[in-house]
Amino acid sequence: MIAYSELGQRAQAPTIARLMTLALENPKLLSLAAGFTDNHTLPVGLISTAIATLAKARATDPEHLQYGMNQGRIGLRRQLAQMLLAYEPVLAGNPVATENRFLITNGSQQALYLAMQVLCSPGDIVLVDRPSYFVFLEMLTGLGIEARSLPTAASGQLDRNGLRALLARMKTDGSASRLKAVYFVSYFSNPSGRSLGLEEKNLIAEELATAGLFIPAIEDAAYRELYFAELHAAPSILSLPAWVDFPRFYTSTLTKPFATGLKVGYGTCTDPKWLAKMLHVKGHHDFGSAHFNQAICEHALVTGAFQAHLAQQLRPNYERKMQVLNSALEAGGLREKGWRWEKPTGGLYLWLEGPATLDTGLDSAFFRACVAAGVLYVPGDLCFGDTPARNFVRLSYGVLNEANLVEAARRFCSQA
Amino acid sequence: MIAYSELGQRAQAPTIARLMTLALENPKLLSLAAGFTDNHTLPVGLISTAIATLAKARATDPEHLQYGMNQGRIGLRRQLAQMLLAYEPVLAGNPVATENRFLITNGSQQALYLAMQVLCSPGDIVLVDRPSYFVFLEMLTGLGIEARSLPTAASGQLDRNGLRALLARMKTDGSASRLKAVYFVSYFSNPSGRSLGLEEKNLIAEELATAGLFIPAIEDAAYRELYFAELHAAPSILSLPAWVDFPRFYTSTLTKPFATGLKVGYGTCTDPKWLAKMLHVKGHHDFGSAHFNQAICEHALVTGAFQAHLAQQLRPNYERKMQVLNSALEAGGLREKGWRWEKPTGGLYLWLEGPATLDTGLDSAFFRACVAAGVLYVPGDLCFGDTPARNFVRLSYGVLNEANLVEAARRFCSQA
Repeated sequence: MIAYSELGQRAQAPTIARLMTLALENPKLLSLAAGFTDNHTLPVGLISTAIATLAKARATDPEHLQYGMNQGRIGLRRQLAQMLLAYEPVLAGNPVATENRFLITNGSQQALYLAMQVLCSPGDIVLVDRPSYFVFLEMLTGLGIEARSLPTAASGQLDRNGLRALLARMKTDGSASRLKAVYFVSYFSNPSGRSLGLEEKNLIAEELATAGLFIPAIEDAAYRELYFAELHAAPSILSLPAWVDFPRFYTSTLTKPFATGLKVGYGTCTDPKWLAKMLHVKGHHDFGSAHFNQAICEHALVTGAFQAHLAQQLRPNYERKMQVLNSALEAGGLREKGWRWEKPTGGLYLWLEGPATLDTGLDSAFFRACVAAGVLYVPGDLCFGDTPARNFVRLSYGVLNEANLVEAARRFCSQA
Repeated sequence: MIAYSELGQRAQAPTIARLMTLALENPKLLSLAAGFTDNHTLPVGLISTAIATLAKARATDPEHLQYGMNQGRIGLRRQLAQMLLAYEPVLAGNPVATENRFLITNGSQQALYLAMQVLCSPGDIVLVDRPSYFVFLEMLTGLGIEARSLPTAASGQLDRNGLRALLARMKTDGSASRLKAVYFVSYFSNPSGRSLGLEEKNLIAEELATAGLFIPAIEDAAYRELYFAELHAAPSILSLPAWVDFPRFYTSTLTKPFATGLKVGYGTCTDPKWLAKMLHVKGHHDFGSAHFNQAICEHALVTGAFQAHLAQQLRPNYERKMQVLNSALEAGGLREKGWRWEKPTGGLYLWLEGPATLDTGLDSAFFRACVAAGVLYVPGDLCFGDTPARNFVRLSYGVLNEANLVEAARRFCSQA
């Protein structure tokens, strides 16, 4: 019998594993659950070209196949800083938009893990958006950290008064002393597809400041590049004056908007000491992410292949597939059956609210019926840091082709 | 002011960062410190071929650029199981030599981190070899774990009586209850270049069993492939009867013996529950290592390119460079000056014992003199879990070419 650590004792099979097992056991199942990208848009040719170019340029000194720095490849960090500046020119001259403050990680997931490891001990509390990214929420559970939802109105918008009341309660009951960070997915969110407006971003900072809680903030911008027609107008919290007194960590990824198999994520931090601590822990995790993959991404950014691929392949493809899934759900009469959702303007997800009395959870009759009908979804209750709503469903149009999206929608509507 | 977690408060700049800064600040420095591989042996052509083959074979469904499984690519895990079986045919039929028990990690470093996270809480104790891998030792410090050295004789061999006495003391003073694992680098060790003999491996198990301490064991076989003339005869603890009652985790890597820039490590575990817990935590770290790199490695193993590259390029190159460095140190009169070392039969390191009164540490006069003379080494005192010896030096012949190895040795000897 092994005597596990506290963290080892807490470690539980993630819910995603149950979904994957279901998919494997039911090969005819059409999955609207997986947040995978579309195989048909993966940049096979671009990557082969990048590698051939690197191999030729560095024939006698192939440093791209050597270890890199723990913090990540400096050329790639420079490219990422420029990408951020292109979104937010106001950051010119700000250290957070220079290579020194960026780090490269094994997908943005590792950036989130490092941030949580250095900020939170078991028993601490993190404020999260509602709904929030369920893999992040499960990570919090694994680290023994408690999630508390940022209050929202029925529209999904952040609720200023609700937040003010929450923070007041936490100060009264003492739990504010355990509040160590606030986290949100700000662009075309997983799972909601929503983007935070400027006012919403500001109100979080304003209410925290009013409460005297200048806690670190983590903005997860993983889907920022995946807009359809135009990028979401609100800048990141890196350039919002309301946030200037808060330590901030902005994370994103080249995984979703380029090639999931490369697993290159990143972050940039306003606080050098916080960044240094995350880097020290990364040194213990792996002392640097795969350098080869970083060189490929750098090449794609320098040559403009990354942006061209996004503009010509990914965005039109995901927009078209979103339209197909949305239309099929409407044609299936889902709105008439009392379901509600907004058409997203970017990202990979439709976030559906079912009738108030419906339970969509993994152990529900509805979930079993959908699996029996041959369609898989992510139960919405997984996406709440606390007091989960039971009647939501996350559908992804990332993986399936158009014909399968239509068929999956038909199956889903047949059970709804 | 950020209120960091306990782990965040412990996070300190790793020593390796000081060495790297020195190297960057002194571009004329010849580094015998870095455990990097030789750029001239990196498999540029092999990898281009692998990628072209994959791109062609999977033109319409490039799953190698898609997310993979958290546990790692099943085809690669099968290849790794076969590689282990080729070393140790006696494991045929043993679950530990099947793909189900393997996991793929971001270098073997992540495998070690996961093992420590699930086994040890702050304040716990791990037995380590003496000397041991200094990045592992710094990771233990970062996790708040105490290292305790396995006693060795002056020859470097494990000392049975010393271990028996240590375990007895730990039982008497109660610290045995905090002893959670034993760790050692068993083939061409970093830093000592030594391999553990069969008797040494067995005595660890026997003394632990006698003391009733059936703690998990972690065998780090990162350099097993990098023998010169013939592989080291002792099998891993996976197939030693003395170890059968212990949970065991065998880790190794494709990084060092193939391409460091790909960062593909792995492990296989005798205990399904322990493995599951490491996988759950890996799900929180990154939910799977870069799938593309795994596909490249699988291709290199399936086609035999990996083994051919090792046999034709890496082994002869490292043996030749070891001979060059060794001869240059002897020609420089180092033995006459009271230095002692053994010629390794594999790996990347020479482990030198200086005169008993010498201090080789980062803050020593000797270290400063070497840097001033233009040569960098890893101070041996970093490589001890406790009661560090001050008069050792680790030299790597991995990176420098033969001419630079000779010059670096000349500089080193001029200060010795």
